[in-house]
Amino acid sequence: MNLKEERLGSEVVFDGKMVKLRFDRVRLPNGRVATREVVEHPGAVAIVPVTAAGEVVLVRQYRYAVGKELLEIPAGKLGAGEDPSAAALRELEEETGYTAQTLHKLAAVYTTPGFTNELMHLYLAGNLILTKQHLDEDEFINVELFSPEQIRTFVSEGLIQDAKTFLGLLLAGVI
Amino acid sequence: MNLKEERLGSEVVFDGKMVKLRFDRVRLPNGRVATREVVEHPGAVAIVPVTAAGEVVLVRQYRYAVGKELLEIPAGKLGAGEDPSAAALRELEEETGYTAQTLHKLAAVYTTPGFTNELMHLYLAGNLILTKQHLDEDEFINVELFSPEQIRTFVSEGLIQDAKTFLGLLLAGVI
Repeated sequence: MNLKEERLGSEVVFDGKMVKLRFDRVRLPNGRVATREVVEHPGAVAIVPVTAAGEVVLVRQYRYAVGKELLEIPAGKLGAGEDPSAAALRELEEETGYTAQTLHKLAAVYTTPGFTNELMHLYLAGNLILTKQHLDEDEFINVELFSPEQIRTFVSEGLIQDAKTFLGLLLAGVI
Repeated sequence: MNLKEERLGSEVVFDGKMVKLRFDRVRLPNGRVATREVVEHPGAVAIVPVTAAGEVVLVRQYRYAVGKELLEIPAGKLGAGEDPSAAALRELEEETGYTAQTLHKLAAVYTTPGFTNELMHLYLAGNLILTKQHLDEDEFINVELFSPEQIRTFVSEGLIQDAKTFLGLLLAGVI
């Protein structure tokens, strides 16, 4: 069966700093007309950074949407026309103050295809060199280093609660 | 450093079938005021269903937001006040026509904490019994069974493109 849904019309109902929301009319495979709500996203990168000593660099930040601090791998949005691997190195340095001399692509996944087109590129970064964190004035991120043993303890205690972080650590073989 | 952001005001700017979007004003740790955009979500479940013969039940559906068909583990939204394990069994039967006699919790993760509060509960479902698929009139889902070997081939070919599916298959030990 052909499952494709054909776009009949599209309207931007909100265009913010973080979220751009489209409200579309589509024709379903059975010929009926339905509506679809789509959060437009430029794409993202997330990086599992591992030091020469085998420690993993994580960031702790307050996530307003979920109302708590989360421990996550560094991540960020793609700039317009930006190459994902360049974005990965840029975000890694901005958020953690580390540059990486090796970068290995782990996967590219849609984070929530039910309502957004966000495609996330996951990388393993190695041979890290400490330079300097570059945060925006209104960005607050703590950088923390952990051994794989500590991270496995966090997993067993339910402290890894972010999907991309769980997936990245598994794909990188850390856990 | 205390990283918490305090809510000063909140406004619902869009309330749709799939997405409810809030636009909030917050006080940052440095005392400044900023805005936050949050997609409100009731929570979700996703299930890795494995038959007695060791085959994995996946669903193929057209994902309008990303403009293509994806191969995914069955998943769906929590009903109001619904227990996640009850929701997992309900969604599994609705989408695939299978009920499970065993259900094992794998993890609970925030899918995209940068802009939504969606918390996804992941389960491994076993001892499946075929009953009957219950789709809405405007829902189109193909059910397909694969061996773990086939799924590992899909992974190496880049055909597993959905984050929750990748994570669920890894946590369940299928890949």
